Amino acid sequence: MSGRLIGVGTGPGDPELLTLKAVRALQSADVVAHFAKRGNESNARAIVAAHLRADVMELPLLYPVTTEIPRHDPAYRTAIAAFYEDAARAVEAHLRAGRTVAVLSEGDPLFYGSYMHLHARLAPHYPADVVAGVTAMSGCWSAVGLPIAQGDDVLTVLPGTLPEAELVRRFADSQACVVMKVGRNLARIRRALAEAGRLADAVFVERGTMEAMVAMPLAEKPDDRAAYFSIVLVAGWEARP
Amino acid sequence: MSGRLIGVGTGPGDPELLTLKAVRALQSADVVAHFAKRGNESNARAIVAAHLRADVMELPLLYPVTTEIPRHDPAYRTAIAAFYEDAARAVEAHLRAGRTVAVLSEGDPLFYGSYMHLHARLAPHYPADVVAGVTAMSGCWSAVGLPIAQGDDVLTVLPGTLPEAELVRRFADSQACVVMKVGRNLARIRRALAEAGRLADAVFVERGTMEAMVAMPLAEKPDDRAAYFSIVLVAGWEARP
Repeated sequence: MSGRLIGVGTGPGDPELLTLKAVRALQSADVVAHFAKRGNESNARAIVAAHLRADVMELPLLYPVTTEIPRHDPAYRTAIAAFYEDAARAVEAHLRAGRTVAVLSEGDPLFYGSYMHLHARLAPHYPADVVAGVTAMSGCWSAVGLPIAQGDDVLTVLPGTLPEAELVRRFADSQACVVMKVGRNLARIRRALAEAGRLADAVFVERGTMEAMVAMPLAEKPDDRAAYFSIVLVAGWEARP
Repeated sequence: MSGRLIGVGTGPGDPELLTLKAVRALQSADVVAHFAKRGNESNARAIVAAHLRADVMELPLLYPVTTEIPRHDPAYRTAIAAFYEDAARAVEAHLRAGRTVAVLSEGDPLFYGSYMHLHARLAPHYPADVVAGVTAMSGCWSAVGLPIAQGDDVLTVLPGTLPEAELVRRFADSQACVVMKVGRNLARIRRALAEAGRLADAVFVERGTMEAMVAMPLAEKPDDRAAYFSIVLVAGWEARP
């Protein structure tokens, strides 16, 4: 009798944005697994800390240190693929032993989340559920009170890693835009927004919904330093009443 | 001393996908307002029913019956603008009396939600908070276990009301797509997906996360009848490991 895999969305950062379903999944799980960089506490674990049972088994899944290898280098891809393979095997050992394993995922598990790599490997072979979560982008536009899209608006979610010309084209082609993975890409994102005539509408949000949140019009942000998980929002809904 | 406006996201339908913050907002509110069609119960109210205080005041905001007026007819726009104006005045009366008013919003309040019309009118004048919610699209892709986007994928959210040629162009131009407001537009969406070569990847979900959920590959859906709030998902992440 095998156990059950549960991908648990922890929401964007505010522990109050956890769902009732996530809390119950944490209370029922035998094992709680969480991704983190080696030497760092898992952000997702910090969000749910108040709901972890004292006797729960924890399974930290520690990313290999790859910052010195460029992301498109084949060596990076090999290292990260081996990591996800090992992580899946570590979770699978608990499933085979009949344990329910909750894998934490910041935001929503199937929306750009690391959990997806475990889901793709294990869900075909074991019972699996996914507990949807509040995404980082929802947390950010709610925290700053910015209506993002309405009616016939198209909303595009763009990784900030895209080439500048593609960013310009997409900013000009969509009523509402959300840029993820801002980090080191902020200068390029800023230039692309200016080129597309959208810089005046852009809002920068770092650590959205958390106590240390920083939010301001992107045009007023004085430098190009930003956390990897910061977000840029460009609202649609121009015809608002 | 005025009251406080709170836009409360109720999530996609499963009452367990309510956040802890939404539950607390409902427990603290003097008034709970909810949108519904005249003669129908509010879906959002049904989702939160277990958390409403017995002594809470309720404020139903009933859409005018406009189905006989086409959406782009100026008469529709006039009727709906008057409705939102009246709804804002009804909520404002409670705010002026010092009451905290929680306005329910299915999914996430600032993501294509009716609450946005109240927020735009009232948030500049009264203290206002927005409690982010799990979106319908997150609920749908989680309920069917479909990883939607990863890495450098672009995700585009499209209203099914767009012209067919624009749907084709956007389906072909984005790794992942979510089509909202499917309803009567299903036949056109299906043709556009086929034209863009994406029909085989498309998943149809109706009443996602609810007990009466229906989900299937769109190519296997036998007819073109669909609820207004059904969704079509086209997953990215082609290079999955």
